[in-house]
Amino acid sequence: MRILLINPNSNRDFTAAMDRSVSPLRAPGACRIDCVSLEGTPLGIETQRDIDSVIDPLCRLVEQESDRTDAFVIGCFADTGLYSAREVTTKPVLGICEAGLATALNLGERFGVVSTDAATLNADLRLARGYGLLERCVGFEPINMPVAEIATSDTARERMVSAGRRLKEKGAEAIVFGCAGMTPYRAMLRETLGLPAVDPCISAVAMAIGIVALAQG
Amino acid sequence: MRILLINPNSNRDFTAAMDRSVSPLRAPGACRIDCVSLEGTPLGIETQRDIDSVIDPLCRLVEQESDRTDAFVIGCFADTGLYSAREVTTKPVLGICEAGLATALNLGERFGVVSTDAATLNADLRLARGYGLLERCVGFEPINMPVAEIATSDTARERMVSAGRRLKEKGAEAIVFGCAGMTPYRAMLRETLGLPAVDPCISAVAMAIGIVALAQG
Amino acid sequence: MRILLINPNSNRDFTAAMDRSVSPLRAPGACRIDCVSLEGTPLGIETQRDIDSVIDPLCRLVEQESDRTDAFVIGCFADTGLYSAREVTTKPVLGICEAGLATALNLGERFGVVSTDAATLNADLRLARGYGLLERCVGFEPINMPVAEIATSDTARERMVSAGRRLKEKGAEAIVFGCAGMTPYRAMLRETLGLPAVDPCISAVAMAIGIVALAQG
Amino acid sequence: MRILLINPNSNRDFTAAMDRSVSPLRAPGACRIDCVSLEGTPLGIETQRDIDSVIDPLCRLVEQESDRTDAFVIGCFADTGLYSAREVTTKPVLGICEAGLATALNLGERFGVVSTDAATLNADLRLARGYGLLERCVGFEPINMPVAEIATSDTARERMVSAGRRLKEKGAEAIVFGCAGMTPYRAMLRETLGLPAVDPCISAVAMAIGIVALAQG
Amino acid sequence: MRILLINPNSNRDFTAAMDRSVSPLRAPGACRIDCVSLEGTPLGIETQRDIDSVIDPLCRLVEQESDRTDAFVIGCFADTGLYSAREVTTKPVLGICEAGLATALNLGERFGVVSTDAATLNADLRLARGYGLLERCVGFEPINMPVAEIATSDTARERMVSAGRRLKEKGAEAIVFGCAGMTPYRAMLRETLGLPAVDPCISAVAMAIGIVALAQG
Amino acid sequence: MRILLINPNSNRDFTAAMDRSVSPLRAPGACRIDCVSLEGTPLGIETQRDIDSVIDPLCRLVEQESDRTDAFVIGCFADTGLYSAREVTTKPVLGICEAGLATALNLGERFGVVSTDAATLNADLRLARGYGLLERCVGFEPINMPVAEIATSDTARERMVSAGRRLKEKGAEAIVFGCAGMTPYRAMLRETLGLPAVDPCISAVAMAIGIVALAQG
Repeated sequence: MRILLINPNSNRDFTAAMDRSVSPLRAPGACRIDCVSLEGTPLGIETQRDIDSVIDPLCRLVEQESDRTDAFVIGCFADTGLYSAREVTTKPVLGICEAGLATALNLGERFGVVSTDAATLNADLRLARGYGLLERCVGFEPINMPVAEIATSDTARERMVSAGRRLKEKGAEAIVFGCAGMTPYRAMLRETLGLPAVDPCISAVAMAIGIVALAQG
Repeated sequence: MRILLINPNSNRDFTAAMDRSVSPLRAPGACRIDCVSLEGTPLGIETQRDIDSVIDPLCRLVEQESDRTDAFVIGCFADTGLYSAREVTTKPVLGICEAGLATALNLGERFGVVSTDAATLNADLRLARGYGLLERCVGFEPINMPVAEIATSDTARERMVSAGRRLKEKGAEAIVFGCAGMTPYRAMLRETLGLPAVDPCISAVAMAIGIVALAQG
Repeated sequence: MRILLINPNSNRDFTAAMDRSVSPLRAPGACRIDCVSLEGTPLGIETQRDIDSVIDPLCRLVEQESDRTDAFVIGCFADTGLYSAREVTTKPVLGICEAGLATALNLGERFGVVSTDAATLNADLRLARGYGLLERCVGFEPINMPVAEIATSDTARERMVSAGRRLKEKGAEAIVFGCAGMTPYRAMLRETLGLPAVDPCISAVAMAIGIVALAQG
Repeated sequence: MRILLINPNSNRDFTAAMDRSVSPLRAPGACRIDCVSLEGTPLGIETQRDIDSVIDPLCRLVEQESDRTDAFVIGCFADTGLYSAREVTTKPVLGICEAGLATALNLGERFGVVSTDAATLNADLRLARGYGLLERCVGFEPINMPVAEIATSDTARERMVSAGRRLKEKGAEAIVFGCAGMTPYRAMLRETLGLPAVDPCISAVAMAIGIVALAQG
Repeated sequence: MRILLINPNSNRDFTAAMDRSVSPLRAPGACRIDCVSLEGTPLGIETQRDIDSVIDPLCRLVEQESDRTDAFVIGCFADTGLYSAREVTTKPVLGICEAGLATALNLGERFGVVSTDAATLNADLRLARGYGLLERCVGFEPINMPVAEIATSDTARERMVSAGRRLKEKGAEAIVFGCAGMTPYRAMLRETLGLPAVDPCISAVAMAIGIVALAQG
Repeated sequence: MRILLINPNSNRDFTAAMDRSVSPLRAPGACRIDCVSLEGTPLGIETQRDIDSVIDPLCRLVEQESDRTDAFVIGCFADTGLYSAREVTTKPVLGICEAGLATALNLGERFGVVSTDAATLNADLRLARGYGLLERCVGFEPINMPVAEIATSDTARERMVSAGRRLKEKGAEAIVFGCAGMTPYRAMLRETLGLPAVDPCISAVAMAIGIVALAQG
């Protein structure tokens, strides 16, 4: 059994962080979880143009890996190429936004999302509305910082805490990371706010494992 | 690491079937998954009185197992005692209805639910509405059969296919089992209808594994 | 004709206040309205465990009084045991939350709810969402005070006004009391804010009288 | 104490039926309930033009009766003039549609409405959506018959049963009468279908009694 | 081809401003656009009574102009008489509120509305909810000023900017004018806020032109 | 002034039909309306892969035409590339799905959509939900026919009437064409069903003209 978690940007540090974040889901004899970057794509998916530009290479990868993969996870909070990828494989394909929000519902009455900036916030909102997953969402709060700097910026930590606090004040009982690049801050945010911090890569891979299990036996 | 999947009825055949159904999620070195029945509870949770009557023994079990358990899953589609159980442990507690519906979103545009009968259908509907998870649901179709007979009845198979077909005609791209007792029909329904059949016990346990991972590292 | 208003906690001062609050609905020759406490239940329904723990004694009372009662009203804003109670009697059973919110719609464009604390606020929200009654609700504001102290606390009055003002600023044209124990503050809040204050016990009993009338003639 | 139930059409038989229907709410010493027709208005409110044409005489009556009335009920399912009437009196004004639908929520999981024809069906739908009261509504079924003939037509009975059955098949647990003129069929429909039949005049007057009580003491 | 834009108040300066505002839609050989005032109606539509009082003269005008008009636009944000007017003509009738909000959706993720005061704000909210057009609305902000003074008041400009800014802070990407009398501030608001300002008269007339085109060929 | 209506497929007959359909909006001295095909794109946009594959050429065209264009309309019911296109120009960009559905609201109480097949139906549904435009939609009915054959197929006419009738039976008062290629059937469907048939290219171009007007003066 193998899950393939695809980072649609070409930033290998990003992919390595993603790979580390899902390691608690690995076990000997359990489903294998591989993380890969796309090649030739932007270092951070910032704009809608970025989002749309990676769909083709993503689909080509999915098609090529389909035979030796049991489920795919698209590791970008825009769930880029989700419906196209489903056309090129018969295996389940999940997006981390949909899986992350769906998981957050199970952690409390309402959740909130930390977004990267105002533009992604609007895109996230549109996506979440399309998923029918806004009803228990208290809102989206941006940290206003380029995706590629989140993991290394001096101020990211502070901005994430501040965004998380605003969401908590609005009633959030779980905080969803609105970008795969926020993964290094999971423990920090969880401990500072006293709330579960949902790294959507973890949630999506776990859900994918469950979906693969549904197709067995 | 240990997940405890609790069957709130006292039917041990039921628990054994549940235990088998989640076995694809087990692996050496991975999260341990235990299934238990409650004692002294009904053989099938049919009525709201049944639902409410098992909350106290359920909570007592959760409290007692809390120290040696990383997450709890309540294996009844009514998600009986979900909020009470969360008060007696600091560990995550999931209900199979909420987790199953949330997972189904990731399998297609819309899903449908096979319910046991008209009374549970109304209770399911109320629950799903409270979860904010009706927007992509095509409906609930009952098989009109007592919970305790589902696994062994001669006509259950045919009734499940018929309910599943009605949901597919309404546009469902995934079928959620609205009772933990339907688990034996997963492969059959999936193959007959050509749609994913969501055994919510599997989905909830996989999600619980992911949620436990969120709290690590 | 007889309506039975049941206070699910065992606090007799509470029941007496409830009894006084519904007295404007009494008249010679009109429907008789009796208020009773449950026995052996908590002095205040604070937690979900409390809510769930009173369902069994509540249902036993409903069953026992069914023959000589025309409608039941559950006097706890959690509408505890509503669906179980409906299984043990053929008579109408109302919850004060559902009836109170439904009444508030008729008093203006939007309403708000004064909750007891953050935990009940989340439970109220879940209940109201399940009822499909959130669309014209501006929000829930907590007074952060134990149920059993509301009627007698020195600061309750001030906290209720403050919560009510926040709701009014958000656009509420009616304020719903999110706890049967707030009944002594109805005139005060109405006069201070210049808005209708909905004591949901009154609203639910009046609605029950109307529902009994539907079944006559 | 006095409630004034206003029939906005000028059909006195209609008003007399309405008057009889609310009689179970009358009692010596209780709130007085008066029913009046408007003068010079249509015999049945069929069209939107009819609806709008009665607002002015309705408001003039409300203004004139305001001092000696504690609450007004507008006895037309279009809730004609509701917001205008609220501007000419400080007393509560209720519409039978809003109060009837709000009451129906308390009678089961979902309700349905018997409408007069396709045009009123669309108007009802718009009204109910504006009220935020569609979430638990299974639909509206028309009897396709002029308002003024409903009470006396030979086929009305049969058409009402047929519309009610369709609503019941869709899951309705209560049937709301979408016209004040359907009041004579309450017992018949309730008994034939085995479901509560909501005469919205009764529900609205009962709710008005409760609202008057809120303003006392 | 002719569109008739009807100002339901009797303020001719108002009508003249409306007429100027739609002039960018005029062209030789294109659809003719005429603006008229009603006679004998209030100088500003402020209250629900005002709204309801103009329906009859509005309908009489529509009926009379029907033969020589291809579509009607009601130039009042309350969409007064929309459904009555549709009964007296077979030609399309649009309201500027519905058309303006529907257009605003096409300008960004979410929009906000500048209302005249708290009473109209509640009426707008009810209308927009009835239209099913609230889901992407960040809110309504009042300028608290009589309709008849908006065009000429010294403080209107500043109040409109302030209301617009509050909406922008809430995430609005387009600002809808909640009163036909705000038309003189379109360029100013657009330039000050850097957001599209939707004069709903323009939007509705353009939409009416498109609807007339649908019926051709 | 110039509106550019872009057909994202490379089928020139398709573009010519689109061009003819918007001709009622043309007039001397009025806004110029040009229609163009993309080059090298599929003959019909059938799949999500098709939808995503045309975004890049679409954006390049928009960027290149931006200086001499006042608004863009994307002539594909999937609104392909809408948000990417908005990033490469400061001019308004509209999608025919969003504009068509928004227009349909103004034509009656509820509308329905004729889709091409089950896959596009699901994509349409997701899009409409994301737009917040499902509340007054009775449903989507497919004609099950490839996009490229719609205009010329012998059976398309009959299938469109049949889909339209099903929508009318569900309560639709306007029928929206869910594909730019259905434009030849506008008059036929309107006359056969007696309902407005919304060619979304016309509606979107008219709305674009209005939006251009908002930015003038």
